[in-house]
Amino acid sequence: MTDTTSQNTLTHLDEQGRARMVDVSKKAVSNRIAIAKGQVLMTPETLQKIADGDHAKGDVLAVARVAGIMAAKKCPELIPMCHPLLLNHVEVNFVMDWDRSRVLIEASCGLEARTGVEMEALTAVSVAGLTIYDMCKAVDKHMVIGEIHLSYKEGGKSGDFHWDKE
Amino acid sequence: MTDTTSQNTLTHLDEQGRARMVDVSKKAVSNRIAIAKGQVLMTPETLQKIADGDHAKGDVLAVARVAGIMAAKKCPELIPMCHPLLLNHVEVNFVMDWDRSRVLIEASCGLEARTGVEMEALTAVSVAGLTIYDMCKAVDKHMVIGEIHLSYKEGGKSGDFHWDKE
Amino acid sequence: MTDTTSQNTLTHLDEQGRARMVDVSKKAVSNRIAIAKGQVLMTPETLQKIADGDHAKGDVLAVARVAGIMAAKKCPELIPMCHPLLLNHVEVNFVMDWDRSRVLIEASCGLEARTGVEMEALTAVSVAGLTIYDMCKAVDKHMVIGEIHLSYKEGGKSGDFHWDKE
Amino acid sequence: MTDTTSQNTLTHLDEQGRARMVDVSKKAVSNRIAIAKGQVLMTPETLQKIADGDHAKGDVLAVARVAGIMAAKKCPELIPMCHPLLLNHVEVNFVMDWDRSRVLIEASCGLEARTGVEMEALTAVSVAGLTIYDMCKAVDKHMVIGEIHLSYKEGGKSGDFHWDKE
Amino acid sequence: MTDTTSQNTLTHLDEQGRARMVDVSKKAVSNRIAIAKGQVLMTPETLQKIADGDHAKGDVLAVARVAGIMAAKKCPELIPMCHPLLLNHVEVNFVMDWDRSRVLIEASCGLEARTGVEMEALTAVSVAGLTIYDMCKAVDKHMVIGEIHLSYKEGGKSGDFHWDKE
Amino acid sequence: MTDTTSQNTLTHLDEQGRARMVDVSKKAVSNRIAIAKGQVLMTPETLQKIADGDHAKGDVLAVARVAGIMAAKKCPELIPMCHPLLLNHVEVNFVMDWDRSRVLIEASCGLEARTGVEMEALTAVSVAGLTIYDMCKAVDKHMVIGEIHLSYKEGGKSGDFHWDKE
Repeated sequence: MTDTTSQNTLTHLDEQGRARMVDVSKKAVSNRIAIAKGQVLMTPETLQKIADGDHAKGDVLAVARVAGIMAAKKCPELIPMCHPLLLNHVEVNFVMDWDRSRVLIEASCGLEARTGVEMEALTAVSVAGLTIYDMCKAVDKHMVIGEIHLSYKEGGKSGDFHWDKE
Repeated sequence: MTDTTSQNTLTHLDEQGRARMVDVSKKAVSNRIAIAKGQVLMTPETLQKIADGDHAKGDVLAVARVAGIMAAKKCPELIPMCHPLLLNHVEVNFVMDWDRSRVLIEASCGLEARTGVEMEALTAVSVAGLTIYDMCKAVDKHMVIGEIHLSYKEGGKSGDFHWDKE
Repeated sequence: MTDTTSQNTLTHLDEQGRARMVDVSKKAVSNRIAIAKGQVLMTPETLQKIADGDHAKGDVLAVARVAGIMAAKKCPELIPMCHPLLLNHVEVNFVMDWDRSRVLIEASCGLEARTGVEMEALTAVSVAGLTIYDMCKAVDKHMVIGEIHLSYKEGGKSGDFHWDKE
Repeated sequence: MTDTTSQNTLTHLDEQGRARMVDVSKKAVSNRIAIAKGQVLMTPETLQKIADGDHAKGDVLAVARVAGIMAAKKCPELIPMCHPLLLNHVEVNFVMDWDRSRVLIEASCGLEARTGVEMEALTAVSVAGLTIYDMCKAVDKHMVIGEIHLSYKEGGKSGDFHWDKE
Repeated sequence: MTDTTSQNTLTHLDEQGRARMVDVSKKAVSNRIAIAKGQVLMTPETLQKIADGDHAKGDVLAVARVAGIMAAKKCPELIPMCHPLLLNHVEVNFVMDWDRSRVLIEASCGLEARTGVEMEALTAVSVAGLTIYDMCKAVDKHMVIGEIHLSYKEGGKSGDFHWDKE
Repeated sequence: MTDTTSQNTLTHLDEQGRARMVDVSKKAVSNRIAIAKGQVLMTPETLQKIADGDHAKGDVLAVARVAGIMAAKKCPELIPMCHPLLLNHVEVNFVMDWDRSRVLIEASCGLEARTGVEMEALTAVSVAGLTIYDMCKAVDKHMVIGEIHLSYKEGGKSGDFHWDKE
């Protein structure tokens, strides 16, 4: 198959293996949504500090939300082969998971374009996680940012996608 | 204790819980190094495609290395409360781990400053991981970026740090 | 009313008051224009220096014009919840007002999009004003940048707008 | 006098009136602080919406604070003749002024450098003001951003400065 | 003729000679391609070092390719009067010309827009050339970047263009 | 020789040929200056249009000067392995060369750092050239940007450098 969206090839490399921003001019414009998820593992004490801030006075998560939304817009500046896109919608949300002592991060992005919006959502999750890390690193140097993955995707020729392991 | 680098407080929040870029003017300039690590889990087939590219013709990892190095420089633009820093050194390396079907990522950053360089190293790892994801996502939508953590840190008042779980 | 463009709600906050880049995918694409205005108040001597430069040799206003135009393009990078937009047109102009010893700034932006272009015009005015300030601050530390407001707006569901106090 | 910091010349222009980033290599490194102020005038209803958000659930001011802090770091990217600087400290605060129906904005920046930090503080105030405007513009198109001025400055050869009209 | 795309006028200046981002809202959206070329002249020894790297282990050209592609996306941030554009495609390639001891650079960009994509291609070539220079400057301070020109252009009202001197 | 600034190695590649931002922490801080030059060749008619603008009303060169100065500050964002630097001084100047129908561009940069400032000066020349091209391309599609080279360099261990072909 020579289809550039085929399952067989790394489309960001040409036949000589050289990197390129793949040509999407023949792809149809469609409405696209992507949801990505991730987490920051931390000690229960650190989680408590974030929660205290969130309820009483502080804003670790408010800052991380802004950072994630702004990072989604910066995605083509960060990821070399990403196409510039006009995001219609970005949302970043957090859940405090006390059982496993972590902050869950979810980012949702939408646009109407020739190419998907997964990288924007994944970038938003990553930078929101880095921001939580930054704001808590004085009290906890053992945090781990992880489980960053695509959770849901709709629109585009390759069809919808649901992460089946959740 | 009112020490702004104390283990007890989220130093990026003031007494009212408002975010700020914390004042480091009283901290001493010292030589600082940080090493961060992370991984991208993928199918063995995807890992093989990257390896094929790396040896024969391609450059997924070369692109991800450049993206990681450039992202380290962009750290204060991405992480709201990070201080701007003049990096003296950035290096991003990869190991193909066939046993666990993943690419291991390691970034090392160095500088001489009043504040640490962990966030730069963690940002380099994250964006290198996102770039690998981007370049392979056409063949594998189940990749997971994770285990992003600080591995080593030297310089600064809080002393050296070794991640003890490796 | 749950309409996201309603006059009753701060649309950049969701029902829980969390910031988001509001979804505009259901809004119609239309041709939009916005004109913003502002001023820099200064001493007559400073105003004279700018004028001398402008006529004889200098280029305070030429630099401020370029800064304002470039800032309009940077608007979504500066204003967290702003949508990225493809500007069709940006113009920044200045009037020397000798009576009230100030430089008047006017920026006009146009595009075809789902969302308005006010913030781009206001950002252009603000950064043009900051640039005039920067270039004159060695001779005048009492300048005041102000009166930055939307003067005119056309296109979009909320209809046209004329600032009625001019 | 040919002193490049003299009160008589626009130092960002050379003898031919051409713009340049003025040479500061001969200036001494000193500790510098600048405080800038400004305001956003709005209807009492809009002010109330911000206050409701701030207390109960929302975060207009939290987002504006992050935007202002990030903008201070972007100052040399926005203002053409500004020197790049390594900020040691940035803080952005707000006061709700019910009597005059406005949000007062104050930004404080500090660093150790050869050149002052006024523009960083003024940029932080401006972009915080633009962000408040953006988040409230759906409910109030008559807001005015203004009174942006230098309030205090210390460090550097030209000595300390206090705005005397407050 | 008052046509803003006329051969007679510098369209980025208005009637008073003031710079502006020219209004393209009346121009038709069309599919556009531009190819730009350039070169870096160097000693045969430097060329050999690049070639050694390229074949055996190194990646001067891989880094320069990434830099060129990312620079194409940054074009409207660099060139003041350039319109922001959504690139559909970017490719940067190199040829080692042993006879004249130089690296030839070619960049090709495509998009669907109201305005052309020449500047993006020329910017990609320039920054790829600067990156080659940077990576080789420790061994050769006499390199010359040059012959940067538009080679081919299609789409838009002004018709196709072929550089006739090649 | 293992000296990282040796004439024998491409220092931006490690022993495995992988790109890195080379470690400069052991290099001494010194005062450094670099001057780069370049040109834009064009038809005499285009040159005349720029000159008309420059004298009577226009500002092609004023805009190109601002673009060049701002690009010098963006150098580490554009050139992947460049170190971030705090420029003390940037100047961009132009000479109209009627004999050979070209605009000569010269950029001079200065700073105090561990690493040189050549790339900043070369980037300023390149982007100033691209901006002249952009502003004149409606009237001349045969312009050529070229002869971009280091003209002078002082400071740093490798000693002073004078381009000997001028």
